[in-house]
Amino acid sequence: MIGRIPIQDIHPTVDCGRRPAKAAAGETFEISATVFREGHDAVAAGVVLTGPGGVRGPLLPMGELAPGTDRWGVEVTLPTEGEWRFRVEAWSDPVATWLHDAGIKIPRDLDADLMCEEGARLFDRAARAVRAADCAPATGPAGATAATGKPVNGRTPASKAAKGTKVAQQQHVCGHRAALQAVAARLRDPEIDPRARFTVAQMPETAAMLRAHPLRDLVTRSAPRTVLVHRRRALFGSWYEFFPRSEGAIIEQGVAPKSGTFATAAKRLPAVAKMGFDVVYLPPIHPIGHSFRKGRNNTLTPEPYDPGSPWAIGSEEGGHDAIHPDLGTFEDFDAFVAKTRELGMEIAIDLALQCAPDHPWVKEHPEWFNIRADGSIAYAENPPKKYQDIYPLNFDTDPKGIYEEIRRVVRLWMDHGVRIFRVDNPHTKPVAFWEKLLADVHTTDPDVLFLAEAFTRPAMMRTLAKVGFHQSYTYYTWKNSRPDVEDYLSELSHETSHYMRPNVFVNTPDILHEYLQHGGVPAFYIRAVLAATAMPTWGVYAGYELAENVPVRPGSEEYLDSEKYQYKPRNWVEAEREGRSLAPFITQLNLFRRAHPALQELRNLRFHSVNNPDVICFSKRLPGAYDTATRRHGLGDVVLVVVNLDPHNTHEATVSLDMPALGLDWQAEFVVDDELSGESYRWRQDNYVRLDPHIHPAHVFTLRAAAANQR
Amino acid sequence: MIGRIPIQDIHPTVDCGRRPAKAAAGETFEISATVFREGHDAVAAGVVLTGPGGVRGPLLPMGELAPGTDRWGVEVTLPTEGEWRFRVEAWSDPVATWLHDAGIKIPRDLDADLMCEEGARLFDRAARAVRAADCAPATGPAGATAATGKPVNGRTPASKAAKGTKVAQQQHVCGHRAALQAVAARLRDPEIDPRARFTVAQMPETAAMLRAHPLRDLVTRSAPRTVLVHRRRALFGSWYEFFPRSEGAIIEQGVAPKSGTFATAAKRLPAVAKMGFDVVYLPPIHPIGHSFRKGRNNTLTPEPYDPGSPWAIGSEEGGHDAIHPDLGTFEDFDAFVAKTRELGMEIAIDLALQCAPDHPWVKEHPEWFNIRADGSIAYAENPPKKYQDIYPLNFDTDPKGIYEEIRRVVRLWMDHGVRIFRVDNPHTKPVAFWEKLLADVHTTDPDVLFLAEAFTRPAMMRTLAKVGFHQSYTYYTWKNSRPDVEDYLSELSHETSHYMRPNVFVNTPDILHEYLQHGGVPAFYIRAVLAATAMPTWGVYAGYELAENVPVRPGSEEYLDSEKYQYKPRNWVEAEREGRSLAPFITQLNLFRRAHPALQELRNLRFHSVNNPDVICFSKRLPGAYDTATRRHGLGDVVLVVVNLDPHNTHEATVSLDMPALGLDWQAEFVVDDELSGESYRWRQDNYVRLDPHIHPAHVFTLRAAAANQR
Repeated sequence: MIGRIPIQDIHPTVDCGRRPAKAAAGETFEISATVFREGHDAVAAGVVLTGPGGVRGPLLPMGELAPGTDRWGVEVTLPTEGEWRFRVEAWSDPVATWLHDAGIKIPRDLDADLMCEEGARLFDRAARAVRAADCAPATGPAGATAATGKPVNGRTPASKAAKGTKVAQQQHVCGHRAALQAVAARLRDPEIDPRARFTVAQMPETAAMLRAHPLRDLVTRSAPRTVLVHRRRALFGSWYEFFPRSEGAIIEQGVAPKSGTFATAAKRLPAVAKMGFDVVYLPPIHPIGHSFRKGRNNTLTPEPYDPGSPWAIGSEEGGHDAIHPDLGTFEDFDAFVAKTRELGMEIAIDLALQCAPDHPWVKEHPEWFNIRADGSIAYAENPPKKYQDIYPLNFDTDPKGIYEEIRRVVRLWMDHGVRIFRVDNPHTKPVAFWEKLLADVHTTDPDVLFLAEAFTRPAMMRTLAKVGFHQSYTYYTWKNSRPDVEDYLSELSHETSHYMRPNVFVNTPDILHEYLQHGGVPAFYIRAVLAATAMPTWGVYAGYELAENVPVRPGSEEYLDSEKYQYKPRNWVEAEREGRSLAPFITQLNLFRRAHPALQELRNLRFHSVNNPDVICFSKRLPGAYDTATRRHGLGDVVLVVVNLDPHNTHEATVSLDMPALGLDWQAEFVVDDELSGESYRWRQDNYVRLDPHIHPAHVFTLRAAAANQR
Repeated sequence: MIGRIPIQDIHPTVDCGRRPAKAAAGETFEISATVFREGHDAVAAGVVLTGPGGVRGPLLPMGELAPGTDRWGVEVTLPTEGEWRFRVEAWSDPVATWLHDAGIKIPRDLDADLMCEEGARLFDRAARAVRAADCAPATGPAGATAATGKPVNGRTPASKAAKGTKVAQQQHVCGHRAALQAVAARLRDPEIDPRARFTVAQMPETAAMLRAHPLRDLVTRSAPRTVLVHRRRALFGSWYEFFPRSEGAIIEQGVAPKSGTFATAAKRLPAVAKMGFDVVYLPPIHPIGHSFRKGRNNTLTPEPYDPGSPWAIGSEEGGHDAIHPDLGTFEDFDAFVAKTRELGMEIAIDLALQCAPDHPWVKEHPEWFNIRADGSIAYAENPPKKYQDIYPLNFDTDPKGIYEEIRRVVRLWMDHGVRIFRVDNPHTKPVAFWEKLLADVHTTDPDVLFLAEAFTRPAMMRTLAKVGFHQSYTYYTWKNSRPDVEDYLSELSHETSHYMRPNVFVNTPDILHEYLQHGGVPAFYIRAVLAATAMPTWGVYAGYELAENVPVRPGSEEYLDSEKYQYKPRNWVEAEREGRSLAPFITQLNLFRRAHPALQELRNLRFHSVNNPDVICFSKRLPGAYDTATRRHGLGDVVLVVVNLDPHNTHEATVSLDMPALGLDWQAEFVVDDELSGESYRWRQDNYVRLDPHIHPAHVFTLRAAAANQR
């Protein structure tokens, strides 16, 4: 049955509340609901959060998001990892109803005395209802573990403290009860004109007391919703993908090429760390099959020393639980992991659940594969195409057996320090399998993250996210026009952001988009600055720094001489020395991301109008979350980005800012500092920009108040 | 946990399945779901319906609604009232997967023998899985009570029978098992070329057998959903509102006016029936208060004989359970109800839960009202406006007492033959009150319908519908421009149609829209034809036939000399004789509605493009539901309407038809017969129209195939 005050369409909610919504520790997001009541009396709403330890927080007041919508919201930040719950509460607000009516009637002397008496009775009730628990503390917030909330519009929140324990709650005492009683007394004072009596009820101090101690009638509570709070890396991070076998590989004419190793690859790590990356993702590091091995450029006729695709997993040297002997031993792997960690980064490995024909499972568990009518094991096919180097797994003949083996493999790598898995093609395995595996891992190791590489239709991508994947690859590489970028990044940052977190790679070993093929170096700058500033998690596959842009053939998104099929050592130092490397620019982007909490959020992306379809403008704002003692003067952390999407031509445009989205009045004037070029401009709502892609394809602005003498 | 084949976003679903969706007996609507699976294997889906008696129907196959959407649907028609349940089933379709792969590989002689053997094994399995229960019956469908379904696109449904009992199921025997075995044998025949063997698997007969007896792997079932099927009047009907006190009232200069009675009002009923109306709605028929009674045109200074507003309910003569003595007795009321029924119509009365100060409840139950600080009962206010003739009820001080009294009142009128209540301002009473009352009435009297008159914000309107109201008033009167009409009627017929049924009044005693005030008689034609053809339930308040259009003052939507405050006898016969009446036109509309099942549906409204913003075009189609033996030649029932929305000027336009929405090929040519003017035209996709509002503001077309000699 519906509650006394209906509370509907609570957001965030996933699958009607059967599955948790997602957030990251410290992430700011809005909780909202449709709340309304019968008749004309005032209604109000709030949120009560319960942390992972079961401690219930204070009531966080919600504000109506836009007049007449019946939609109420509050921005919250959940500081600690774990399972949080929240309920929306709604209530009748008799004081607000009275204030509205009295504000019309008393000045017109309609029932003035009676209205005052009725108000006095409400303030009597409010005084009686004051609970010490709701008083503001004498000192600062009691605990860093408390959730905090900020109503999205209109009303500001009561100053409320975190509550550590029941005992702690009783320590706070305020004079609000007596003060509310005094308001009641004043309203009853026959010596004073009712209009004068009424003013005391309208004072801001009275309003503040009522926010701290609301008089609530007909209190209605929603069913609880769950928000699973993951570690911050689930939301924010810069990823770098490289093939360890390429780093330190030796290729000499007439000699068998020599693979790089974990030891030689580790030498690349300091440069990756220096570029500001947080996660190092390695393609599969397992033994590679020999049967039907692919040669260079995906040919079917390999040379004897061609190393094969790392995704053709398994040989007589082992399967998913083994390390390719060319790369080294488990000790070498452990040392690589340790070095990564030492540099302030962490490692992600590939979980690619398919097998080469030489994989040990093929002999030991033929029932885990598809057996054809002639008794042979089915290789992968997309008729008439054959992929004879790959045997897909069958998850249905022995679901328990295969599940336990895969869980063993995953936990093996977890025991070797792997806390992030990049899952290859999860959409070709049963969704229910992932739901079970991820829940299992989460139970013991909630810090372990899974990234879904599911380049498939929206229903599957979204469902994988709902059942537990922490991050998802995206269609970003294919979104290059302004409408495409605006629509898609808006969808990612708003529509699906409560359960699906994008990991926006600008390229991958499989995806060299034609925009990069034909746009020259400016294209690489443009796509990097868009991804790195619009989205909190972005990724780069090695070679992007060198603007590698030659496809294997026209019309293909595959690289020429793809690293998937051969060693590809690169001379990073020389490229940088010769000024051919984007590494300094990528470093600049990543360090800027680290310095700006607004860029570490997903749900705060807002696009602004631009009168040139080749120019895009967006901002990210984190209200009040930044040190207000800085030069930003109450704007919080705000980053404003303007990008010329045309890598070939200079464009001019007028940018028309949605000023409230920046935390500014429509008439405000302010200074924007371009953190890439070092230039500053005086801006207001409408602003001229001119971007030459060969010099600076983008402005990345921070905002500050114009100095007084500039006025 | 998610199922083996994910099934998501099932439609219709209300409040995550906690409340039933709505349908009417015989209504056609789509059940749809997002269904997909991992990898590339074929998936299929269907719906299983369980009727109110607990009898489970056959599997109704769904089709994919648009390629690549993963959205599957089937149109169903539930014939009987009561609570239906349905589940969506999804499964892996190994035969479809094989047909796809074999269709590529066998012609290229890739594994041709092996592919044939694998196909043979699937047909062996399909043959073993044949259940007699799924065989088509030898004779026609077993019962008129069976739900029928039609996949929305692509695949056609298997010919399936209703199943009365388990025993009945066993009666049907077909030769499908042997036939499927024969396919397997053929696929294994070494004497035949594999290409020739394969053709038997591709034959339509084979496909039909597989539809009747699908081989289903990994069958996954959704949680059940409920659809509450109401009697047909909940969906389709033409309403006529009039004040019985006006019919037969005698107003003579210098004499106290004399009220009409049920007996005199009954004389109006045959004319109402003749106009084709189904429901006669009467404003409140209870005693009217004397205190602060309103005079003519809502004045505060009534003349002694002014009858007052019927919504100021209650006097010393009784309250909501009494009849105004001027109208007659309960016997007179019963006779009026009987007469209405005799004429093939039914009555709706008003349930207006508020009281005049003289209402018996005020003395007997002051706790059911709001008591002010001075002990007085609060009258209705919207400060500074006062409504001293009305005391609102308070539902919170004695919720049980007031609930039981109101239930008693409702059941009293039910006992006097009232099966429809038009609820006045339900949005000023608690939603939870309505949910309880309507559920209570539904338990014993599921044929009793409630219409919500909630002119308020969408959240409340929709929630009232969700908690049980069968119909809702709409914003139709305020939607007069083409974008407004298109957007709003689309919303009503699609977005909210699974739980909220619109009752589209063209005017009410409170709403004389300025479009009618200023548009002359053509405006009345235009608004009637739009409502009556676009929406299955429409309503007219008496006086519309006479194009009464004078407001009490400019800018007001109130009528001059509103019938709410005075008797308003009208000379219907004279108006018709003088050609001043729209009654013949309304009759034409209502009889056309009765003849065309497509107009009796809500969810089949589709708008078509028109290159003139003052002209609107829409169609309603019921595929196959109409007698195909008629001249409509397989089009089903289709009605196409073109309306000039400008009541002042003639407009020309080109109408561009969405041909598939009419059940036609894009190249089709056909004849449209205007059922209002009697003219016929030869039409195709793009067509010229010219509409003079003073002659025919609208075309209301039926469609027929062009005769052969016309080609």
